Amino acid sequence: MADYTFYTNPMSRGQIARWALHEAGAGYEQVLVDLKAKPAAFLTVNPMGKVPTIVHHADGGDRIVTEAAAICLYLAEMHPEAGLLPNDAETADYFRWTLFAAGPIEQAITSRALHFEPAPDQEAMAGWGSFERAIATLDGFLKGRTWVCGERFTMADVYVGSTVDWGLTFGIIPPLEAFVAYAERLQARAAYKAAKAVDNALIEEMRK
Amino acid sequence: MADYTFYTNPMSRGQIARWALHEAGAGYEQVLVDLKAKPAAFLTVNPMGKVPTIVHHADGGDRIVTEAAAICLYLAEMHPEAGLLPNDAETADYFRWTLFAAGPIEQAITSRALHFEPAPDQEAMAGWGSFERAIATLDGFLKGRTWVCGERFTMADVYVGSTVDWGLTFGIIPPLEAFVAYAERLQARAAYKAAKAVDNALIEEMRK
Repeated sequence: MADYTFYTNPMSRGQIARWALHEAGAGYEQVLVDLKAKPAAFLTVNPMGKVPTIVHHADGGDRIVTEAAAICLYLAEMHPEAGLLPNDAETADYFRWTLFAAGPIEQAITSRALHFEPAPDQEAMAGWGSFERAIATLDGFLKGRTWVCGERFTMADVYVGSTVDWGLTFGIIPPLEAFVAYAERLQARAAYKAAKAVDNALIEEMRK
Repeated sequence: MADYTFYTNPMSRGQIARWALHEAGAGYEQVLVDLKAKPAAFLTVNPMGKVPTIVHHADGGDRIVTEAAAICLYLAEMHPEAGLLPNDAETADYFRWTLFAAGPIEQAITSRALHFEPAPDQEAMAGWGSFERAIATLDGFLKGRTWVCGERFTMADVYVGSTVDWGLTFGIIPPLEAFVAYAERLQARAAYKAAKAVDNALIEEMRK
């Protein structure tokens, strides 16, 4: 039995988790979830009915992890040999930008995609402030920087990078130089290529 | 000089970070930010202009952390002696529910407060699915459970707990038994009381 059961759908945030599994070198068995007819067994594991969801068959019992960013952080911890954890000095950027992508950027992108934008007097309540400010903040950070934590790739890049890569592909975030160059560095990674090859083949299959 | 500079406003998510600082036993100097006239020095530290923001004056240089959930995770790592980090078996719940609160629950609450709810066909794009499903999932998890990681309080409770506590206070999440009982356990903690006493006194002062 593989260490992980991975519930996913290739056309979902499951692509983030698959890339994380490949970066961590984690062995997994995949269960494809039809998002229009979710199996009862899956809803027992995750009542939210959301993919990605992983079940880690650890000594001592199964552990369920949901939320793409949490899956990234968890896998980095469980596979320290993969070198994806931050060192002491990198820890601030590691958590800050993972949560910035999972919070303000995710909200900015989602609200724009759903045609909802907060009014100026709602910006304090809306944690992302405004789409423009959230994107400008991320752009300002990535300028002149190779990876989230500086010169070394960490698991934070899988999550932050997936957001940038996905946002560029779907034209939701603007093709600023820092974003495009960062996405190219991500796409050159072996684990990125291996993970995307699986998802792209599955998407191809679904379209037949 | 204190180890941390803490930019906050008592009527903001800064209350989460203050509680985290007290739980961690971290020494901090507070800088109150007028959200209607943000000082330039603060905007240099955090271009998003959002509180809470902490600056850790670490050996080797200053480190900036933004996003309330990231501040919680960071402080737990920097102060292992406070015992707020998860053990190996607790790590899945620790990250899963912190990110569930920072993602789906934050989005569900914000969108409801701003009178925006996704249509059923938008629920796949909207990571929180629907307000009802997100709240029901959190309720189902907390039922019969003392803390996020089981029998032991961890930093995840500061973040998840702040969401529940705040949501109940403002009537945004329903007063379900599991939520109310959890909030009472949180409110009994010494660090919670100490942190809230400071913020409540500041709010009182602002109202004069």
